Amino acid sequence: MEWFDDAAVMASEADADVVLELIGGEDGIAKAVCENAIAAGRHVVTANKALLAIHGKALAQSAETAGVGLGYEASVAGGIPVIKALREGFAGNRISSIHGILNGTCNYILTTMRETGRAFEDVLAEAQELGYAEADPTFDVDGIDAAHKLALLASVAFGCEVDFESVHVEGIRHVSADDIAFADELGFRIKLLGIANQTPDGIEQRVYPCMVPMDAPLAHVEGVFNAVVAEGDAVGTSVLQGRGAGAGPTASAVISDIADIARGTILPVFSVPASQLTKTKTVSIENRVGPYYVRLMVLDRPGVIADVSAALRDEQVSVEALLQRGRSAEGSVPVVLTLHETQEAAMQRALSRIAELDTVVEPPCMIRIEHL
Amino acid sequence: MEWFDDAAVMASEADADVVLELIGGEDGIAKAVCENAIAAGRHVVTANKALLAIHGKALAQSAETAGVGLGYEASVAGGIPVIKALREGFAGNRISSIHGILNGTCNYILTTMRETGRAFEDVLAEAQELGYAEADPTFDVDGIDAAHKLALLASVAFGCEVDFESVHVEGIRHVSADDIAFADELGFRIKLLGIANQTPDGIEQRVYPCMVPMDAPLAHVEGVFNAVVAEGDAVGTSVLQGRGAGAGPTASAVISDIADIARGTILPVFSVPASQLTKTKTVSIENRVGPYYVRLMVLDRPGVIADVSAALRDEQVSVEALLQRGRSAEGSVPVVLTLHETQEAAMQRALSRIAELDTVVEPPCMIRIEHL
Repeated sequence: MEWFDDAAVMASEADADVVLELIGGEDGIAKAVCENAIAAGRHVVTANKALLAIHGKALAQSAETAGVGLGYEASVAGGIPVIKALREGFAGNRISSIHGILNGTCNYILTTMRETGRAFEDVLAEAQELGYAEADPTFDVDGIDAAHKLALLASVAFGCEVDFESVHVEGIRHVSADDIAFADELGFRIKLLGIANQTPDGIEQRVYPCMVPMDAPLAHVEGVFNAVVAEGDAVGTSVLQGRGAGAGPTASAVISDIADIARGTILPVFSVPASQLTKTKTVSIENRVGPYYVRLMVLDRPGVIADVSAALRDEQVSVEALLQRGRSAEGSVPVVLTLHETQEAAMQRALSRIAELDTVVEPPCMIRIEHL
Repeated sequence: MEWFDDAAVMASEADADVVLELIGGEDGIAKAVCENAIAAGRHVVTANKALLAIHGKALAQSAETAGVGLGYEASVAGGIPVIKALREGFAGNRISSIHGILNGTCNYILTTMRETGRAFEDVLAEAQELGYAEADPTFDVDGIDAAHKLALLASVAFGCEVDFESVHVEGIRHVSADDIAFADELGFRIKLLGIANQTPDGIEQRVYPCMVPMDAPLAHVEGVFNAVVAEGDAVGTSVLQGRGAGAGPTASAVISDIADIARGTILPVFSVPASQLTKTKTVSIENRVGPYYVRLMVLDRPGVIADVSAALRDEQVSVEALLQRGRSAEGSVPVVLTLHETQEAAMQRALSRIAELDTVVEPPCMIRIEHL
């Protein structure tokens, strides 16, 4: 066996049928390895969601032109065969929605916050010690990793070009222990979800923490587990759930891809040939229609609720429930509202007005409610 | 297009690449259709779990000899691609356990009993009216349908011969509204599960109603939904969940099989070639080791608990908890026990003795507890 100092050169020159890229990163050496391997007519198997989310269309085109496979089962939801399910198992379906818990680090943090009542920063630090979170947790806790995966799922499910740029992304840093406790009281669990919907107006691609009802399948997916829900017109609602990361699950997915290649099962990378992928028409988050949860930290004075209510009324935002807890002559107290279905743009305008009230002492915390 | 009065003749003579068999039944015309199609070199796609559970090995052998595909994704868990996941997605794994909710009718009945507090017969009658249960519900409520499916899953997961005869089967007729209420109180849900485990002593294949802890993934699979849990050495615990029956889910699975055949993806029927399937060495239910729930209907008299306790003690069965509710001078009252891990044979001996006590007025109701 020959030794190479440069993995990109190895991908071009080594005597190999299949090149595995498990380096990571959307550019640099990982990209060069994949490109060189494909150019040399070698199959590629990768776990690199960032690379595919950014350069997926170009890589798919190259692989399809070269007649080689580009396997990436390991890039989404660990060992759960979700790419296989979408591309093969649900081949007879028109998929209207694909959504799920796509980042195990965030799910671990949110689960631990709920179980222990501890704050985000505290649990994050512990997760870093335990190796569940990276030293730089940005990609995970700010939702970027989930957005990479969501962009891949949307492309496979809907036959559209991978469009990471269009994903609306929010992370979990602003979710407080209070919000988690209130969610529990209201019958919800807070989960960081990736949600992609096909609508008459285009494709919605969103990653944000949201409240899901306790009886939703995703509400009980805890800790480092991931789960993906697909809604197909024939199959109905299907849920695939398992460990989202780690050596074993990644190896399981990589081997499945290699076995497919060995058998000669080479499919279009994103379920239809790259040249036939549709352009994504993106629906802005401002057009979201749904219920909302809002937590305000207010001074305990007469007239606060009246001011907040007026701001909501002026934007036609209708209150479903209001919880006020505790008394405080000096400091602030939380006021929690749940709001009936309303449009995001109206909600945001109302929140801007509320944020400017003298009696509201922190920026409002808004969490969307998803009845999935 | 030619008309045939006999489907079996059509399977032999029609100009077809693929024959779909959606008739059902383990023998008769369904079997003739599949056999004739294979003999004529045509691929077969079927939803017939009974046929494959009984004649799976012979049909797999014929199909593999003829070089044709035998697709049966629709036969287990509706549109959920569980056969594909086991045969392809988890190809890199050694599977130690496969279990799940495999019969939507039973799950619907148990869910409705819990939600409404109504009795089995009452809910069954309603399910029949709604079309969720057959006029003759035997196959569903006595666990036979689930056992057919379990035998197929065990074969694919473990690479062993399909061995329906070795499945220990119990249905849900004896589960009472009381048991469901007690389960709730004890933190469990009652589910009809199919469970196949690979153990050093052989393969366990069992279908019975059991209590699963509220935090188990299967506890929240309700109504007509099915779910299958696979434990792989690399992938860990994976759960696949969806609608277990109906026209849409069945069509989805059938089309997936046809698409595989069209692409030329023809795999060994039960994951390894039929000639290499291992003989199943069956572990008897008497060797089961686990916790148990027992409900006794007893006369409310002094000494009853002492007699029951003595019978358990003599078989080394250790009591975890005991619930006694209500008082009744005349009639009987329920006494509920949960028992620590013990062997089934000892449990059965103790129950025989308890059943003979004068103060125990109904046959004891025993439900196994499964911490899956």
